[in-house]
Amino acid sequence: MFITFEGIEGCGKSTQVNYLVDGLENLGVSVFSTFEPGGTKVGQGIRRILLDSQNRNLSPLAELLLYAADRAQHVEEVLKPVLAQGKWVVCDRYLDATLAYQGYARGQEIGFIKALNQRVSRGIQPDITFLIDCPVSVGIKRALDRNKAMQEEGQDRFEREREEFHNSVRKGYLAMAEEEPERFVVVDGTFEEKALAGVIFDHIRPFLSPEDCGGG
Amino acid sequence: MFITFEGIEGCGKSTQVNYLVDGLENLGVSVFSTFEPGGTKVGQGIRRILLDSQNRNLSPLAELLLYAADRAQHVEEVLKPVLAQGKWVVCDRYLDATLAYQGYARGQEIGFIKALNQRVSRGIQPDITFLIDCPVSVGIKRALDRNKAMQEEGQDRFEREREEFHNSVRKGYLAMAEEEPERFVVVDGTFEEKALAGVIFDHIRPFLSPEDCGGG
Repeated sequence: MFITFEGIEGCGKSTQVNYLVDGLENLGVSVFSTFEPGGTKVGQGIRRILLDSQNRNLSPLAELLLYAADRAQHVEEVLKPVLAQGKWVVCDRYLDATLAYQGYARGQEIGFIKALNQRVSRGIQPDITFLIDCPVSVGIKRALDRNKAMQEEGQDRFEREREEFHNSVRKGYLAMAEEEPERFVVVDGTFEEKALAGVIFDHIRPFLSPEDCGGG
Repeated sequence: MFITFEGIEGCGKSTQVNYLVDGLENLGVSVFSTFEPGGTKVGQGIRRILLDSQNRNLSPLAELLLYAADRAQHVEEVLKPVLAQGKWVVCDRYLDATLAYQGYARGQEIGFIKALNQRVSRGIQPDITFLIDCPVSVGIKRALDRNKAMQEEGQDRFEREREEFHNSVRKGYLAMAEEEPERFVVVDGTFEEKALAGVIFDHIRPFLSPEDCGGG
């Protein structure tokens, strides 16, 4: 079972990934939590380049190819072997993020992104994708508050983008969710976080078999 | 005028780039010298990942995409604007290196590499490519001696490759030179370096116009 989380900056993805993983572990499910970009050692180097707010002139095509490189390594080193062990995998951002950010928002050719995604994913597609949707103003405020709480210096390269950019990302995600309603579950990111975790877990419950829950 | 240098590790590319640039500058030609990977600030981060011998498990596809990302940035930030200024550009490695290393030697699909190269190069093709050919044993010995002289710790990820890998790179380069004899000039990397610089300069001389040489 391969579950991905998607959404704009500050939508609450990481928090919900943690709730879901805790919930699954409490039931005895063997689950592995990971993320893109940066889910491997090589990917951490790539992530630093992508988020570094000093890299203001990073070309949109170079950005897209860096995400693809990160994903190629992540699929090969993490996703394929862990899924092959029969574990559940929960991943914070995957293929859809590249379409939303580099395609819908940055204007890179959708057909090229899909071809790249297909090549790097090696057939590994999510079974369920939770799109945590929220207004851009809410997401940006949360991202800023989080940076303050973590005493991080300034904003990363994506947080620095204008509201218009984040709106394009959001619209892109919603368009994809409409195209693939059988895979996407759109949930409301303005919900209180525990209540939202409950909504998400209710969607997962039908997929749990006694074997998943430690053979119980 | 856009001139590239290609060849295996230790073939003497960088030395010959320097001789050529000095020779052109002495004639008053406005020339810019650059290299891949790492010819931009973003590219320096990418180069560190690519050469880091700790990254032994870097997937061949991730490697290819990192080179493509480096090139996309280099073309956009350096090659296009500098060539547009009417300067001569001499570049240490370019499109052919990806075909030789990631294609012929690592076995990534040649058609996909060509499509990537076409997209990232944005129509910028070398006018002349010098392939400095030498036996693998000569190249490896030189690369090791250079590391010792520069007191660098150990070998980089490519220098650590087996002789078979470097032989495939060399064969790939020679095959490409045979396919495009009008662009490639194959020179003998076992020549004494100043003599070789003379051979290379003789190939460049016919392209020099009085305008290039400071209008003289």
